[in-house]
Amino acid sequence: MTKTAVIIGGGISGIFVMKDLQEKSIATKEDIKIVLLKREDTGWVSVCGLPYALRGWYEIDKVVINKPEFFSEQGVDFRTKTEVERINTDDKTLKLKTGETLKYDYLVIATGRKPALPEMIEKSTMKNIFTLSTMEDAYSIEAAFKSGEVKNALVRGRGIIALQAAAAAAANRIKTTVLAGPPSLLPGGLDPDMGDMLKEWMQKQGIEFILENQPISGLKEDGGRVRSVLIGPRGEKEIPAEMVVVAMGMRPNVRLAEEAGIEIGDTGGIITDNSLHAKTKKSYLKEVFALGDCIEVIDGITLRPKLNQLASTSVVQANVISDNIISDIKGNPCLYSSYDPCMGPVVAEIAGLNFGSVGVTTEAAGRAGIKTISGKATKLTKARYFPGAKPLTMKLIFDAFSMKLLGAQMISEVPVSDRVNEMAVAIRACVNAEDLRNTERCFDPSLSLLVDVTVDAAEDALKSKSVC
Amino acid sequence: MTKTAVIIGGGISGIFVMKDLQEKSIATKEDIKIVLLKREDTGWVSVCGLPYALRGWYEIDKVVINKPEFFSEQGVDFRTKTEVERINTDDKTLKLKTGETLKYDYLVIATGRKPALPEMIEKSTMKNIFTLSTMEDAYSIEAAFKSGEVKNALVRGRGIIALQAAAAAAANRIKTTVLAGPPSLLPGGLDPDMGDMLKEWMQKQGIEFILENQPISGLKEDGGRVRSVLIGPRGEKEIPAEMVVVAMGMRPNVRLAEEAGIEIGDTGGIITDNSLHAKTKKSYLKEVFALGDCIEVIDGITLRPKLNQLASTSVVQANVISDNIISDIKGNPCLYSSYDPCMGPVVAEIAGLNFGSVGVTTEAAGRAGIKTISGKATKLTKARYFPGAKPLTMKLIFDAFSMKLLGAQMISEVPVSDRVNEMAVAIRACVNAEDLRNTERCFDPSLSLLVDVTVDAAEDALKSKSVC
Repeated sequence: MTKTAVIIGGGISGIFVMKDLQEKSIATKEDIKIVLLKREDTGWVSVCGLPYALRGWYEIDKVVINKPEFFSEQGVDFRTKTEVERINTDDKTLKLKTGETLKYDYLVIATGRKPALPEMIEKSTMKNIFTLSTMEDAYSIEAAFKSGEVKNALVRGRGIIALQAAAAAAANRIKTTVLAGPPSLLPGGLDPDMGDMLKEWMQKQGIEFILENQPISGLKEDGGRVRSVLIGPRGEKEIPAEMVVVAMGMRPNVRLAEEAGIEIGDTGGIITDNSLHAKTKKSYLKEVFALGDCIEVIDGITLRPKLNQLASTSVVQANVISDNIISDIKGNPCLYSSYDPCMGPVVAEIAGLNFGSVGVTTEAAGRAGIKTISGKATKLTKARYFPGAKPLTMKLIFDAFSMKLLGAQMISEVPVSDRVNEMAVAIRACVNAEDLRNTERCFDPSLSLLVDVTVDAAEDALKSKSVC
Repeated sequence: MTKTAVIIGGGISGIFVMKDLQEKSIATKEDIKIVLLKREDTGWVSVCGLPYALRGWYEIDKVVINKPEFFSEQGVDFRTKTEVERINTDDKTLKLKTGETLKYDYLVIATGRKPALPEMIEKSTMKNIFTLSTMEDAYSIEAAFKSGEVKNALVRGRGIIALQAAAAAAANRIKTTVLAGPPSLLPGGLDPDMGDMLKEWMQKQGIEFILENQPISGLKEDGGRVRSVLIGPRGEKEIPAEMVVVAMGMRPNVRLAEEAGIEIGDTGGIITDNSLHAKTKKSYLKEVFALGDCIEVIDGITLRPKLNQLASTSVVQANVISDNIISDIKGNPCLYSSYDPCMGPVVAEIAGLNFGSVGVTTEAAGRAGIKTISGKATKLTKARYFPGAKPLTMKLIFDAFSMKLLGAQMISEVPVSDRVNEMAVAIRACVNAEDLRNTERCFDPSLSLLVDVTVDAAEDALKSKSVC
């Protein structure tokens, strides 16, 4: 008998559950009707590619990977411009805003996140105040860049998207100020000493920073368009800005789930079990799954709930959910998989500098009652006699008792993504500083040094441990 | 009381024991007299950089990292043009060729390797027959390249140096033929399907291959310079070659050790314990260490002895030996370290293509009685809409019973060194195919894909397992 899987949300999470489920239903010869409900009028869009488009690397529409028709033609009931009014987990139905009722055998909640805008911004009707979440946002920002009207921009936030937006504005020769809280950039991934390296790099490109607890307390306009931003409790300081980009405070979008009686954790995200089942007060719902930016995960180091709103997290969770739907239909536990505690590997290129991070920061470890010893080193990534050799700074964070690796942070002009993945495996494998120092790493002078920066950073931590 | 450590050999192994020992003696405030005995008249030379110099990337002398005086000025008794006649482990002395006798408290044997040349080559006095192990070799080859006399070159061997030499000859517009055994290139690191990808790439650059069991059976000359090479048991085939590079059959250089009664394994390398002590028939010698190309190591997968003649292996072993000398002097076991079974991560750029390998090949596993299942995938390494996105082919080899990762092989135009290191950690950590498929990897469209080629290769292996 054909089972119906309904997916709410068409971001990376929803798209990947759909793709994986389709592929696995073919592989297992299981006939599954897949319905995807999406508010926006788009198919698969790589929104992570938008900031680079604004830097001028390619046209914005390049981030469209597949149009809705692509999936419809493959037999998915792919509905755009469709909003869900209510979920009823008792009779396993959804009510759409149009009044239509849909019955599901499996429900996947992938409702994503939404910005929690400062009230002043939320209420404003001025032109040139943007967020950067969708293609429409990117087109609007690009139009503002090209209008010639914007000499100054203010970016609110210090996460990846905020800093990439600032880099894009600066690349468009706009004087850019980043307004965010103290003490440093990307605090979720980088300790202040590492975050400051990124700040100094961006400052050299003319970007200014106000990293104080200064709320936006007023906006001035000029013919309907923002002209300046007042900051400080009483608007003491005025910053000229013909454009404002707000990229901060992304909250899980859990209204539908909450109204259906699904439990939300203290983090604001939906609570799930290892199979990514959602739960009501009574128990986990064997036919309701949730993933992506709207759920909370268990942190791999602190083992406490947290939000980890990354596309990379979504694709792993999508694999787990599609496995578990197939496993349930087949009644075969061997087809199941589980979602492990989250190490949160993250990487991005910001204004020409790459940063990477995985595991906990020193501050996050401290908050969880974990004392740490760190080691740091800066070194070229290939032989100094090779053309284009560039330095990389690596900071490793170890448990001060066991010297097990808990976190790694890196900054370089060269890509660090593969190194972040290596450190993710190392953390999961309970590798300690001694292991890292004595493990053989491949060498070729065009690609590496005989003694890598990782080894030096581990050695540095061991020295701190020995005098501690 | 000052202890004397004598190091025989000034390649990477000897140089790194010297450097590490010096650094650690300062850190521990221990006065150690370090004597390094080196046959060549050079300091620290990065011979791995020579093939790239021959490709024209930089001048040959760039591979000189430090001259002998650099180390002498730091207090090392750094003796070049110095050969050892005999080691006497009973009274802890060395006799030099000059007749001088040196007393040691600690002896480090780092005598490296030497080519086992085919008899025909060994005996020949013709010009333009080269090996590629030293700076002198590189200068001679460069002179031949520039002479205008060489239209055709023959390279004997199919390892990294042989193939890099072939790439250098081809880059100098010389018609190049590689002569080596079947079935494929780099058989120590790559399965035939992966080795063939490299061969096809090199063939497109005009390099020809004869991969048959065809010995060199004759050489023809022209005014004292080689003119052609006869191959086959009776010299059936004549290959024009105004230049021959032999890069094969590197054997551990163990004459001194063997004559001193130190045990040599079936591999031809010196046998050591986990602390890298050498042994006589009776027992391990607590004051004699050996490392690098002249020793055998325990393979991390098969747990059998093998040769692993890589600079990357040497630097780890140098750290272990210097730890253990300091630990012994101090009588403090906490300062010791041990050398783990060898995973042999290896990487090189050959004619514009990068290859990487770690763990066992399918063939090596089979020889050790391990049945394997492999998975393979080819995929771009960043979003397709990014300029310059290139494919990477990844082959993963798993134990067919446990699906634990035993080996990884990769080929790409983009660097793969950090990925090799990741897989080395994964193998050591007993990661299996399921782990690899479900582990989160960092994502940024400028640096990676949402679903990496590693995940696809693991998935591919799991499919093979499920139908097996």
